[in-house]
Amino acid sequence: MTTRTTFLGTGAMGSALATAALGAGRPTVVWNRTPGRAGILGERGAIVADTVEEAVAGDGVIVACLFDHRSVRDVLDPVAARLSGRAVINLTTTTPNQGRELAAWAAERGITYLDGAIMAVPQMIGGPGSVIFYSGAAAAFGEHRPLLNLWGECSYLGTDAGMAALYDMAMLVGMYTMFAGFMQGAAMVGVEGVPAAEFAARATPFLAAMTGGLAHYAAAIDAKDYAGEGQQSLEFTEVAVASLMQATIDQGVSVEVLKPVHDLVRRQIAAGFGTQGTARMFEELRSSR
Amino acid sequence: MTTRTTFLGTGAMGSALATAALGAGRPTVVWNRTPGRAGILGERGAIVADTVEEAVAGDGVIVACLFDHRSVRDVLDPVAARLSGRAVINLTTTTPNQGRELAAWAAERGITYLDGAIMAVPQMIGGPGSVIFYSGAAAAFGEHRPLLNLWGECSYLGTDAGMAALYDMAMLVGMYTMFAGFMQGAAMVGVEGVPAAEFAARATPFLAAMTGGLAHYAAAIDAKDYAGEGQQSLEFTEVAVASLMQATIDQGVSVEVLKPVHDLVRRQIAAGFGTQGTARMFEELRSSR
Ligand SMILES: NC(=O)c1ccc[n+]([C@@H]2O[C@H](COP(=O)([O-])OP(=O)(O)OC[C@H]3O[C@@H](n4cnc5c(N)ncnc54)[C@H](OP(=O)(O)O)[C@@H]3O)[C@@H](O)[C@H]2O)c1
Ligand SMILES: NC(=O)c1ccc[n+]([C@@H]2O[C@H](COP(=O)([O-])OP(=O)(O)OC[C@H]3O[C@@H](n4cnc5c(N)ncnc54)[C@H](OP(=O)(O)O)[C@@H]3O)[C@@H](O)[C@H]2O)c1
Repeated sequence: MTTRTTFLGTGAMGSALATAALGAGRPTVVWNRTPGRAGILGERGAIVADTVEEAVAGDGVIVACLFDHRSVRDVLDPVAARLSGRAVINLTTTTPNQGRELAAWAAERGITYLDGAIMAVPQMIGGPGSVIFYSGAAAAFGEHRPLLNLWGECSYLGTDAGMAALYDMAMLVGMYTMFAGFMQGAAMVGVEGVPAAEFAARATPFLAAMTGGLAHYAAAIDAKDYAGEGQQSLEFTEVAVASLMQATIDQGVSVEVLKPVHDLVRRQIAAGFGTQGTARMFEELRSSR
Repeated sequence: MTTRTTFLGTGAMGSALATAALGAGRPTVVWNRTPGRAGILGERGAIVADTVEEAVAGDGVIVACLFDHRSVRDVLDPVAARLSGRAVINLTTTTPNQGRELAAWAAERGITYLDGAIMAVPQMIGGPGSVIFYSGAAAAFGEHRPLLNLWGECSYLGTDAGMAALYDMAMLVGMYTMFAGFMQGAAMVGVEGVPAAEFAARATPFLAAMTGGLAHYAAAIDAKDYAGEGQQSLEFTEVAVASLMQATIDQGVSVEVLKPVHDLVRRQIAAGFGTQGTARMFEELRSSR
């Protein structure tokens, strides 16, 4: 029997992953809880399995792309014995600790576990800009590289199965806070009748350019040198952010998204670091540990 | 007497602006509260005035780049009578209302007022990527365009003198929240020993790419259509952000930067909009008015 690749979960993302495998001519089995959603992949050449048991028959690699950590356990637990000695690549979004828990669950059952975190939307899979982080079993990452390469640029982040999710989430924090900050800005100009699209046209290249400043902050953080040349001081930032707070209030817009940034800066100044660089905010966030 | 351009304030930014004028061969007068800081511009060909009175002699345009709104009034009030019939271009950072106040102050005194907001650091002035917003007197924007063009790409945002500052601040809200979100992310991976520079190397292109999503949010906001196809639902976002919150707590890092984003999403869901698009957060921010 030819080695087949099994896809558990053919939602938006699972379908994109399976489609890339089919496009490369790989023998592909698909299963989805709601049967109808896998049908279109059948038309493209996939074997549509009616049950998970049927889907995991054979000795090929299993790719899970389900809703959450819980659904992965729900689907895999009943067939765990069949998976012993085989590799599971889990592309379902989990927290780092959930990824570690699944790795431990797999290890107890003799299953090789590779965790993946997809930094792309389904339409991007297999195209430019699609980046996927992996962590966990190094051997599985090496062995299945031809499959993984079909989906996007692969980064292996170490044997700790939680690292892919941790990088993913750490980056998404930046994304969601940027989105929320953009919405606050759009609300501020919106009060004067400026369309959000006009604001986005200006804010998009500006924010993209400003990501260039992150490396400078990072250098100060790694060197633990917040007193070096060329850093914007916390005191300067405090004045700037206080102005933004006032302008937001003047526009009648909620300051809730920006306020914690102001608070962080003020606490660092109160702790005696006002003349040091703004990257010192990092220490304030970390010190809650 | 040749028409001279007067620069009041030769701090980091004022010096960059005056240097660009000198580089273009314009007769340039500079003044700074602390006399020593203007000296280097004297060596480059500027007339260094000892007093503000001396600096604003003649009939040329006045460029102010001081610390804040208060310092602009401190410097201009005593010489206001000398400025009647002339143009003041104020590139000092102000809030929108402070810009409007200065415009009203100028109007009472027969002074033409153009407010500017510089979206660049001093080293960028006159180079690629330097963008400056202007609002207020349209005639002054037109007449002094050759001067303004020396500093960067010019955008005129209307006769309301507060608009340049409003756009500036609305964009800076996005920048500061993104910076803070990046710091939270760097702290999350930092707990596992990942250098901030390594995280920045991955987060920078990712966040730059994600600015591409802002136009989609803007389209939903302008259409007030949060139920349209292809929008990530508030419920989906809530699950995602809740995971980020949990992962942050698991790492022992403060959730304070991300928490308001989660709260906004949850309030919109509680208000009955869970199946609608995430851009609906905008309405929650605005409704505090
Ligand atoms: N879409 C993206 O942009 C994106 C990006 C990065 C990562 N991801 C991650 O990829 C995963 C899948 O996302 P998606 O966009 O494909 O979502 P989706 O379209 O909603 O698909 C979810 C899949 O999970 C299945 N499922 C849910 N609960 C289940 C359970 N208890 N037992 C068995 N199957 C269950 C669904 O089956 P039914 O059809 O029966 O409901 C469906 O196949 C998620 O973890 C998501 O965070 C998505
Ligand atoms: N640097 C940037 O990246 C940047 C970017 C965009 C906008 N801006 C804005 O540009 C303006 C100037 O910034 P900068 O970077 O040039 O700052 P800076 O280097 O600190 O210079 C501040 C200037 O303001 C003067 N000043 C302060 N208080 C004064 C007062 N009460 N009376 C008279 N003069 C006073 C200072 O004179 P002394 O030398 O006597 O102290 C100095 O000339 C600020 O509004 C800033 O927000 C700066």
